[in-house]
Amino acid sequence: MRGHEMVDWIADYWERVESLDVLSSDAPGAGLERLPETPPAKGEGDGAWDSIFEDLGRVSEPGLTHWQHPSFFGYFPCNASGPAVLGELLSAGRGIQGMLWQTSPIATELETRMLDWMRIALGLPERFASIGNGGGVIQGTASEATLVALLAARQRARAAGTADEKMVVYTSDQAHSSVIKAAMIAGVAQGTEDRTRVRLVATNARLELDMGALAEAMQRDVEAGLVPTFVSLTAGTTSTGAFDSIAAACDACAALEGHVPWVHVDGAWGGVAAICEEHRGWLDGIERADSVCVNPHKWLLTNFDCDLFCVADRAALVEAMSITPEYLRNAASDAGAVIAYRDWQVPLGRRFRALKLWFVLRHYGVEGLSACIREHCAWAAWLEERVLADDRFELGAKRSLSLVCLRLKAGEAATKRLMERVNATGQAFLTHTVVPTTAADGSTEARYVIRVAIGSTSTRLSHVEALWALLESHADAAGSGAMSGECDPGGVGSPS
Amino acid sequence: MRGHEMVDWIADYWERVESLDVLSSDAPGAGLERLPETPPAKGEGDGAWDSIFEDLGRVSEPGLTHWQHPSFFGYFPCNASGPAVLGELLSAGRGIQGMLWQTSPIATELETRMLDWMRIALGLPERFASIGNGGGVIQGTASEATLVALLAARQRARAAGTADEKMVVYTSDQAHSSVIKAAMIAGVAQGTEDRTRVRLVATNARLELDMGALAEAMQRDVEAGLVPTFVSLTAGTTSTGAFDSIAAACDACAALEGHVPWVHVDGAWGGVAAICEEHRGWLDGIERADSVCVNPHKWLLTNFDCDLFCVADRAALVEAMSITPEYLRNAASDAGAVIAYRDWQVPLGRRFRALKLWFVLRHYGVEGLSACIREHCAWAAWLEERVLADDRFELGAKRSLSLVCLRLKAGEAATKRLMERVNATGQAFLTHTVVPTTAADGSTEARYVIRVAIGSTSTRLSHVEALWALLESHADAAGSGAMSGECDPGGVGSPS
Repeated sequence: MRGHEMVDWIADYWERVESLDVLSSDAPGAGLERLPETPPAKGEGDGAWDSIFEDLGRVSEPGLTHWQHPSFFGYFPCNASGPAVLGELLSAGRGIQGMLWQTSPIATELETRMLDWMRIALGLPERFASIGNGGGVIQGTASEATLVALLAARQRARAAGTADEKMVVYTSDQAHSSVIKAAMIAGVAQGTEDRTRVRLVATNARLELDMGALAEAMQRDVEAGLVPTFVSLTAGTTSTGAFDSIAAACDACAALEGHVPWVHVDGAWGGVAAICEEHRGWLDGIERADSVCVNPHKWLLTNFDCDLFCVADRAALVEAMSITPEYLRNAASDAGAVIAYRDWQVPLGRRFRALKLWFVLRHYGVEGLSACIREHCAWAAWLEERVLADDRFELGAKRSLSLVCLRLKAGEAATKRLMERVNATGQAFLTHTVVPTTAADGSTEARYVIRVAIGSTSTRLSHVEALWALLESHADAAGSGAMSGECDPGGVGSPS
Repeated sequence: MRGHEMVDWIADYWERVESLDVLSSDAPGAGLERLPETPPAKGEGDGAWDSIFEDLGRVSEPGLTHWQHPSFFGYFPCNASGPAVLGELLSAGRGIQGMLWQTSPIATELETRMLDWMRIALGLPERFASIGNGGGVIQGTASEATLVALLAARQRARAAGTADEKMVVYTSDQAHSSVIKAAMIAGVAQGTEDRTRVRLVATNARLELDMGALAEAMQRDVEAGLVPTFVSLTAGTTSTGAFDSIAAACDACAALEGHVPWVHVDGAWGGVAAICEEHRGWLDGIERADSVCVNPHKWLLTNFDCDLFCVADRAALVEAMSITPEYLRNAASDAGAVIAYRDWQVPLGRRFRALKLWFVLRHYGVEGLSACIREHCAWAAWLEERVLADDRFELGAKRSLSLVCLRLKAGEAATKRLMERVNATGQAFLTHTVVPTTAADGSTEARYVIRVAIGSTSTRLSHVEALWALLESHADAAGSGAMSGECDPGGVGSPS
């Protein structure tokens, strides 16, 4: 086998990725055309590898958008690192199935320990520790974390005598679409537009959940005989990185008569910043939340997938997800002597993902990881200053950590052209969002803004400087309406 | 970084795994005790790797049950291979996010092509091809495939005017627990024991879904004003490898008045055997099924996770899962010019899992993979003959492909003791199941049987011979009640 060669190929890719165009220029179907229509009857065996390595370039590379490029500023980052990739490799090589504690005890116990380490590293309260009633688990994505949180919330409400058809879900109009998707999967909503039992609560001028509006919406539902069951807050929205106030939301929930809704906090992107003590402001009130997730696979040097989901009362979660019939339950499991993580998630099977987190934490340490986040935030602050100092530009929203939203004062079309021109150079990749903005006269306008999300592993200040030079150099032409004739990369979306 | 060393470590592990005890002997908490309680503040940096590699042995190895051991015969296999592991490594190293076509076109298009290759390799009908209304996608697990199939079925029934609370789900009493779990997640069932809208239909003497009982159950529900919505068949049950008749089930569905239920086929383990033409009998009727899944990560040399889910009408699936608001839909996507696989699954983010399937197919070819399956089945047939030729033993069920269920005629306790004795040697690993057996007088008895699932990548006939020697040598002592004083590995469960 050609393992050494693959390691070298990847090391070389990481070296040369900076020289490649960030964005693939493949047209739909181009990749399909580079692949045979039928599978090979005979294996190429070890001889396959020369042609496979050739095809990695010829067939595969033109169709890649390079997320590990130092000038990838689109969506949110998905920052891999050497230690994480080696952890993934080891997980694949050992090839164990960690669905139950029994099927490889260390897969469960290393995961438990890594979640406890991360709880400490992020400054999360003890209620989320595995000693006690809480605990953490690695989910694939924040979408899955939101779904299982909703299922646990439903279970808790059922136990309190609430009928499914009375349950209502709340989140902000800036929250990730995965909240609606979770409601659709669970049968709470019959489609994206079904608002029978899903409330997209308004946000304030900072695009944070409006707590007055939340309290009102819940109260209205209680009066209508419905039961507020699940509130999903966001710690760093996809569009602009806004943080909802956990303390205020928990106050609003506690003020309700009757059932207290489950409060989940989706910190997929912004949550990991809590590894820096100065970025823990958003945690205020977390000791009253029921669950929280953060994604090391976005911004903590751990390759996708690795979402950390912590829950204060794991009993409701396990009750909602366990398919072990009552008569097969055992004292060891009930007493918490062993954890069966299959009962904390949708799938049964489990990869050994704790390995990559273990390697990352040991290689970089908490200090190394915080230093990395601090750098990204500092570079974003540098970019923010440039934007504020240039008369042609303005911020599209307040900077949040390493996310800068900017636009041309020349307006919507100009801003869009600017992004297209920059992306067409191949030297950087940006995505956009649309931000509701309240004018001085109180009217609201939806504004097209460019998002610059800093956080790729190989990004340095020089790449942010180069991005700014690109933005500057194309600003006038974009403002005057000149087109570069290229490429719509397809709108914002967040890997979650 | 120490990539080369990790490659060598894995190669060495694959060499020496045969010399290790298959089953971990860790007590609960032993692994936790080998790990510090707090995360490292300072990173060890490159210096970490000496201690990390040491800890792979000291901390991690005692807690592993070695799924890649040639004498791992428990559960179902999870057979990895060099090409697959290198595909996983490349996926991690490239670090792209394939959530949308736009975020790396080749991730979507290689996956589409691999699913089409596998459709051809398995002899699945054209309705599951991506050209047309159908198509395939890689899911993490069969559990997720079952869930999304159920969600698509619900969507189709809603479109036909069926209210959610009228929908009923059917599967056999031998089907995988993930069907009930899917129903729980979707809100069709409120717990494992809730039979309001879930029917576990009886099986016949061969443990296949009893088609008369299915027709009756559906008819009864129709008469009660309910709507049969989803029928989940199994191609190779977890316990004994029984195959439900797809053609007969589709006949029963077609005979109903009104809405025709969605027929899903869970071929997680047994389905991949269709890569051998002589093992395609179970496909009879598949041209009338709505969806089917098979798991290369069980028995096709592709490391976990890799479940292939094929659907005949992808519109219902996408409609059920898409979170793209109507006004953002576009002609290219609607026309099928590009596929957004995020709308085919629960999570949004996606690893580039098609790479490992691509490498496996090129390295082994369809012929190499079929040869491997044929060998496993032949060795199972060899073991079956030994069982039949030994007066102390009997089959616990008809052999299915590479799965042999056996027991001691001396009875339940003796059979259990035999398994425990064999597992305690560390030289092989077996799991058990309980099989409902009908006696000559018509009475039914639940019988404890040992499952021997052959399929690990490194297994050779010599390992099956060695297993038989172990079984033989411990049979008398187990039959006479002598205990070896060891280990309950915890019952059957299937990674799915």
